[in-house]
Order: sequence, then structure tokens, then C-alpha cells
Amino acid sequence: MNDLQATSQLLRAMGLVRATLLVDEERARNNILRLAARGRASRCRLRPHFKTHQSADVARWFRDAGVSCATVSSLDQAAYFVDHGWDDLVVAIGINPLEHEVRRDLAGRCKLGLTVDHPDQVEVLASEEIDARLWIELDVGDGRAGIAWDARDRLADLAGRIVAQPQLAFRGLLTHAGHTYGRGPGDAAAIFAETRERLVAARDALVAAGLPRPLISAGDTPGFSVVQDWQGLDEARPGNFVFHDLMQLAAGICTTQDLSCAVAAPVIGVYPERGTVIVHAGAVHLGKDRVETPQGPIFGQLGTLDELGFADPVPGAILSGLSQEHGVIRLPGQHGLRPGDLVLIFPAHSCLSCEQFGHYVTLQGRVLRRFRRQ
Amino acid sequence: MNDLQATSQLLRAMGLVRATLLVDEERARNNILRLAARGRASRCRLRPHFKTHQSADVARWFRDAGVSCATVSSLDQAAYFVDHGWDDLVVAIGINPLEHEVRRDLAGRCKLGLTVDHPDQVEVLASEEIDARLWIELDVGDGRAGIAWDARDRLADLAGRIVAQPQLAFRGLLTHAGHTYGRGPGDAAAIFAETRERLVAARDALVAAGLPRPLISAGDTPGFSVVQDWQGLDEARPGNFVFHDLMQLAAGICTTQDLSCAVAAPVIGVYPERGTVIVHAGAVHLGKDRVETPQGPIFGQLGTLDELGFADPVPGAILSGLSQEHGVIRLPGQHGLRPGDLVLIFPAHSCLSCEQFGHYVTLQGRVLRRFRRQ
Repeated sequence: MNDLQATSQLLRAMGLVRATLLVDEERARNNILRLAARGRASRCRLRPHFKTHQSADVARWFRDAGVSCATVSSLDQAAYFVDHGWDDLVVAIGINPLEHEVRRDLAGRCKLGLTVDHPDQVEVLASEEIDARLWIELDVGDGRAGIAWDARDRLADLAGRIVAQPQLAFRGLLTHAGHTYGRGPGDAAAIFAETRERLVAARDALVAAGLPRPLISAGDTPGFSVVQDWQGLDEARPGNFVFHDLMQLAAGICTTQDLSCAVAAPVIGVYPERGTVIVHAGAVHLGKDRVETPQGPIFGQLGTLDELGFADPVPGAILSGLSQEHGVIRLPGQHGLRPGDLVLIFPAHSCLSCEQFGHYVTLQGRVLRRFRRQ
Repeated sequence: MNDLQATSQLLRAMGLVRATLLVDEERARNNILRLAARGRASRCRLRPHFKTHQSADVARWFRDAGVSCATVSSLDQAAYFVDHGWDDLVVAIGINPLEHEVRRDLAGRCKLGLTVDHPDQVEVLASEEIDARLWIELDVGDGRAGIAWDARDRLADLAGRIVAQPQLAFRGLLTHAGHTYGRGPGDAAAIFAETRERLVAARDALVAAGLPRPLISAGDTPGFSVVQDWQGLDEARPGNFVFHDLMQLAAGICTTQDLSCAVAAPVIGVYPERGTVIVHAGAVHLGKDRVETPQGPIFGQLGTLDELGFADPVPGAILSGLSQEHGVIRLPGQHGLRPGDLVLIFPAHSCLSCEQFGHYVTLQGRVLRRFRRQ
């Protein structure tokens, strides 16, 4: 029996039948412990982004590692984690002025951090008379959201509007250096250093303008994975590192030992004449993010399983196509898989794959709850 | 007030707050009526694929158009529609041998069509002793799943195995000509004609081999949208046509008047210096499929709304970036949008966007139920 067949046997022994989101708890805990220790050594508060896992049970692994605050990307996610005992959350996405009710409710139930980059947003929050801690989002080069880090007048103006509202607390400057993704460790480290410099410069400019000294916060998995020393930053908000994925692996940001989530999927077609296998796991199970390569997009890669947990990805066993419910795996040669076997697929982008499931299963068979958007 | 601002006002008047999946019922019903009439005129049974909408309420619009059978892509979807009164369903994806229980249950509750292309699958179904109608999947050139249409011996062998099992009914030959997607109307029509020829040839080969004459069934939105006359086919299984999307529009398969689903999304950032607007609608709301263009991928396009329903897409107002929760809209020039406005986004691929939501809202404010995978 080869490794793929042995993996199928182990997955079937777990009682799995359909596409199922699996997590290797030991690997995920190691990923958490590593960055938690780095945060402590750097005297930088780790406020991990929980959008990746969105699970009250995975969140407990963070708690076990000494983490007591978190980041989320919607008010609904915040409400879920408040319901599960988390009382210090930052919603790291610009506020939606229309969500008055859920925001008011949440502000009364936790230390609620909110993100703004526009005067209208400050005005709305002031009118709501809620007890919130405001972060101003800065753009340090990614170009997605936020005020440009060197637009001193705009920044001082917005901070001034917050400070002028007695019920709003001006907490800090927050950025997401999204331009570290898909690059190698050297680039990620260089962008990390530049990001820190730019946050410090923006902070110092505010202080020079007579405004209260804000905290500074950055968050992206590549930078915080490759840089050991986070000193100078007050808060760190990476998220993907808990699971990592093929994108991080392809960029050299993580090792194969760090891949801690995968999708088990049933084989429903075997085509030796085409060198492919079809699984009933498509875009609705894996999301449709991809690693771009000169040979075409990679939507996932087969892995194997042994008694210790996930083993390494199988070279060349690539998920090369993904339609709504079908996944096409390029698997030339003798592989021994037949309809009814189960394979293990490491996803291209774990955050989006996890979003497609209502729960996780650990390799010990424990079901972990997961938030699901209504 | 410009069209985008007027659209925002209409969407806000509907009471929408967060990313919401909208459907223009009149347009969707027109799309349904058009193909239902074409099926009747061609004496070809329309067995629409319900994987696109997965809604018992949208399914009633098909019933209103005289449709009484459907296609789905999982046993769970089948169970959902059986629960809502549909009793003739084909599951047009190779069977997963492991799903014994739900299959046995369903076979007792409806006329259940199942898809196979491998002897192991026939063996499993025979051992289950269920009352099922079997379709053999053929590959007519798409190269995803199925037996090659001209592999006469393999096809006759598999059909023979089905016929040898008294409790299994051999129903027909089924294909998905997925290679019509992303091409123009001329190519789609040519592939449609070739697909029909190949299905006929495969059927005739089976009859010549002494096997019972099977039905022949094809299903893809581009082919069935551009070809008026479906004669010669017994069943037609397109799905996407109920909503269409930017992919079909870009390929010239549909018109702007056929786009019948869209996502309403709140503006949370406005960046005139970058010519962009950010909405809280990301890959978790829209899926991450794309229309590839020389200028880069398009994940969606803004539309407008008037009293009659959806109006046309706004030229150049492109969703050019999509991260987990953020959508980046390229919108240079004066647009008047501010945080708290709502925009309407036509998705690149409606099937995957709809998958991200638990319900639809019509433009009249009616909530439509939707199946959600556990």
C-alpha cells in the first residue's frame, strides 16, 4: 500500500464521508506558541486576527498560549467571540456607518476597538454615543484602505476630530501591510521594517502636532513570521499563521511542518488516460484562491497522513482545476486511488477554505465549532 | 444626485445594512421563461441545474414556468429539494461510494437519478439495493470527468454492468460541455452541435452493441443560451442562465438585461487620491471567481437600480481587488459616494457568489430561502 492509500485508510477509519475541514491540533498549537513567545520576547502584544479560524475552540488554544485579546473583521465575528468569553477585540476593518444597532450592543459588552479613516465615520460614532476605542487605519504602501502614512495634515485632522469627542477614545494607528503576501522572506522582512518606520513616523507627527501619543499596530502573517524582533510595535495582528497554507509555503514564509489545516475529500472519478483524479470538493469547499505558477494556477496540493498527523505535501500532486463542486487533481502514474477513497488536500489559501465550512474536525476526531455568517 | 447616489438611496430605503444578495425577480423569471419555451419548442425536457440558486423559492418560479424536474450537484441539495416537493432529480456528479445512508434514504423518497463513470460505482450501487436511475457521464471534449465519448468498448462495458443489475435502471448518457464557458456565441454554438453529435454517436454505438437505447442529456449555459433548437437531445441541464453574470456577459452569451442577481454592499472607505472605493464585501461574500481581461482580473462591476429593477452595469466601475472581507472598486472621478452608502455589484460568477449567502432578498423586499451546506 502506498502513502496515498494509507492516508485514505486513516481518513476512512475516522468515519469521514464527505469533504471535511481537518485541523492538526498539534501543528496549529505550535504555530500559536511560536508567535506568542515572539510577542512576549519583543514586548509587543499579540492580538491575533481570528478571521482565519473563526472558532471558539481554536481561540482556546490561543488562550492556552497566554493570548487574551484578538482582532476580527466584522461586528458579527466580534459578537461571536464576545459570546465565547473574549472581552477585548479590535474590528480591523473600516466601520460601516449603517450598523448602529449591533455596534451599540457590542460596545456595552466588551472593550471594543473600531477602525476609521474618514471624518464621516467619526461623526457617526460620535452620534451613537458609544464607548469605543478608535484606531485610525494607515496605508503604509499596500494601497487598499487607510490614510497615507505621510499625509500628516489629514491624519492630524482626523485624530483631532476623535479627540474632540469626549465619549470616543483615540487608541492608535493600525495598518495591514498586505503587500508582504506572495513575496519571499527577504521582501517580507524589508516591508516589515519599513512598515514599523512609517508607523513610528506617523505617530511622532501626531505627537508633534500636540495630539495624544497613539499605540501603533501592524498585522500580516508574512512579516510577523519571518521577523523575530517586533520591538517598537505595540500590537501585532497576524492571523493566517495559525494554519498557514500553500501560498505561504510557496513564498517561503512557512515550512511544510507548519501546514495545519487541510480538506479531506472523496475521490469520485479516476482517469489514468488523462492523468487525473476527480474529488467531490470544489470552489464551494475550498474557496477559489490560487497560487500562481508558470505552469498555471494551483488551487491545492495533496498531502498524506500518518499516525503522528499531517505529513508533507506530495510532490506534483496538484489541484489544477476547481469548478463549483469538482476538484481536478493532476496525478499521473500509478497511484492506486479508486472511487470511495479519501484524499487530503492542503488549500492554496486557508482563510477562504475555512470560510466554506461550519466546523472543523481534529485528527483525534473532535469537532470544533466555527462561526458562520448569516 | 447621480445614478450611484440614487441607487444607494433606493437600497437604503429597502432597509439593507450589510452585504446582501439581491435578485431581480422579473429578470430571473424572464430568463426561466425563455429557456422553458425553447425546451418545449424543441421537444427537449428542461431539467435545470439548481446548484446555481439552491432556493426552494426560486425553484417555484421554475414550477410556474412548467418545469417539474431538476438537476443538483450533491445528495444534500437533492434532499433539500425533495423536502420542498421536487420528486424527480438527477445528481449530475459522479457518486461518492461512501454516502450510502443519505442515498438510500433519498432513493426511497423520489425518482433519483445518479451519475457514474467507473465500474466500482456501479458495484457499490448494486450492493446498496436501491431503486435508482443511472446516467453514465461522458466526456465530449471538456476533459473534466466522464468516459471519452468515443471509447465504445469502455462505455458498452459499463452500460452492460448496469443492465446486468436488475434493481438498477440504465437511464441515459449525460455530459457537461464545460468548454463552452468563457468563449463567444459562435464557439458555444459549434461546441453545442459537436456535443449533440457525440452524444448521438455514443448512444448509437450502445444500441449497435445490443444495449437498451439510452436518453441523452447535455447541460451548459453558454450552449443552451445561444442555440435556439435543442432537438435531438432528450434533456437539457443548464443552470447559470437563471441569474447569468459578468462571465456570460463578457463572452457575449447574455445581455445586460439578463443579469438578475447582484450583491448590495456598504461603502466603508473612499479614496479619491487612489481613484478607489472600498466596500465591506470580499471573497467571503462574492466568491473569488474572476473575468480575466488584459487589464487584469474583474471580480465584479457596479450596477445601478431604478424603480423598474436592476439597470445596466456602470462602465469602468470595476471590482478590481478582493481580499477576505474587503472589495476594492476602481472608481476614478467624481462619484459622490461616502461611507454608509450602498452600492450594487454584479458578480463575476453568480453560482459562487450565491453560495456565500443563506438567503436572497428580492427588489420588493421578500426574503427567499436558500439551502446551506452543513
